[in-house]
Amino acid sequence: MKKSIVVSTQHTKFSALAFKEDFEKSIKKVADLGFDGAELAVRNPKDLKVENVIKIIKENDLEVPAIGTGQAYGEEGLSFSDPDEVIRKMAVERINDQIVFASNFNAQVIIGLIRGKIEEGVNRAEAEEWTIDCLRKCTGFAKEYDVRLTLEPVNRYESNFINTLNDGIEFIKRVGASNLGLLADTFHMNIEEISIYDSIIQAKDYITHVHFADSNRWAPGCGHIDFKKVIETLKKINYQGYVSAEILPLPDPDSCARLTAKTLDKLNIS
Amino acid sequence: MKKSIVVSTQHTKFSALAFKEDFEKSIKKVADLGFDGAELAVRNPKDLKVENVIKIIKENDLEVPAIGTGQAYGEEGLSFSDPDEVIRKMAVERINDQIVFASNFNAQVIIGLIRGKIEEGVNRAEAEEWTIDCLRKCTGFAKEYDVRLTLEPVNRYESNFINTLNDGIEFIKRVGASNLGLLADTFHMNIEEISIYDSIIQAKDYITHVHFADSNRWAPGCGHIDFKKVIETLKKINYQGYVSAEILPLPDPDSCARLTAKTLDKLNIS
Repeated sequence: MKKSIVVSTQHTKFSALAFKEDFEKSIKKVADLGFDGAELAVRNPKDLKVENVIKIIKENDLEVPAIGTGQAYGEEGLSFSDPDEVIRKMAVERINDQIVFASNFNAQVIIGLIRGKIEEGVNRAEAEEWTIDCLRKCTGFAKEYDVRLTLEPVNRYESNFINTLNDGIEFIKRVGASNLGLLADTFHMNIEEISIYDSIIQAKDYITHVHFADSNRWAPGCGHIDFKKVIETLKKINYQGYVSAEILPLPDPDSCARLTAKTLDKLNIS
Repeated sequence: MKKSIVVSTQHTKFSALAFKEDFEKSIKKVADLGFDGAELAVRNPKDLKVENVIKIIKENDLEVPAIGTGQAYGEEGLSFSDPDEVIRKMAVERINDQIVFASNFNAQVIIGLIRGKIEEGVNRAEAEEWTIDCLRKCTGFAKEYDVRLTLEPVNRYESNFINTLNDGIEFIKRVGASNLGLLADTFHMNIEEISIYDSIIQAKDYITHVHFADSNRWAPGCGHIDFKKVIETLKKINYQGYVSAEILPLPDPDSCARLTAKTLDKLNIS
């Protein structure tokens, strides 16, 4: 396994981000702390100087395992489950732009909050079909770029569908695309899974990316999740990908990144 | 320790309630399952036939350890931290009505969601002062009836202040009333506390009521909270009060109540 931490390419309201100011400095810090990669949180790739982002990543000898896409929902309201067809079309276009951007790094594109919430008064089965339709369009487009998508179950307070790994697997099966995997996030799992470990075992054929955050969404080691056992379980299923810290910048960005690096080094993830 | 489970006196939107239909039948079930008490969730005591509620509780030989009051926030928007003075005054009046109702049972009055959320654009320090002012008014009124209030920290998604037991203790100290205690809820603690056990130990002089729900808010035993260790910790601080199940009615009301009774009996709480 390799380790990464989330860095936003621009300032954002989204809270669970170690670094969201001064991209170049943040990336340098991530490299200095010994991370193998930086997961990038991007609102709209069209707002970025892509060549510049590529250059900064290369200069610091980092990989980009995944692109986070939730800001387009949080800040612009784009979503796969919106009753308005135009909004859904814009959400698909945005993810397609993220796919083109991701192809520069061999990064996965995360489908997290961009799926939205099923609004009151909206038929649940219909909203699920809209979501599946959007996922089919995006995975189809992603195949042309040899890019994978990864679906992230989130806790009940952040969305009212796809909360558990098993919910995620059901959706992945319904979409039926070979380039759609599953993202296991320990913070969400602490709230939603009956057993964090058993659910990882059961999802072994689907997990393509992992988020590490402790029970309180601080750096691993700051709450009560047993990361030693999580790592053992990931090794048991022969997970070879990244564990990426999607955490609150507390007590401050530098400290939480340092704490993450320290905890992961102690746990001997490789 | 004694065991209870939450029963709503009327139908409600609030989801974390085992029973919310047909009060008399629900109370009978609670008694049949061997619970010592029923915690009552009440939107407005003035809508109740109080003598009838007292009669049903007595006939079933149950106690009422606490009154839940959050529906007045969830369904009517009354709160202690609302910028509108009239709303705050209505919230205090509602809690005072709950205090009079509670005095029939020697029950504590829970201050949970009724504290509200600090709205965007509202000064945090000011909203905290409003809340403290309301708490002083209510604890003062409660003294006349020899009733205690108990302040419930809830997780970050349900309110943006008083999330940890320690936050609760700080507020209790600032209010400075001898009849204001602390409510420890395991579902919220699983999200907010660094260690569920250490935080109980640290709050030992303040805890006057305990909610049991598992990590997924199902009945104790359905998630990954170690209730054996929670019970041991509560025994360590010599907690003599109630553990009360505030849980989702899943898979259905009867099953979740039965599961709760079974788990608590196995854990030998007394």
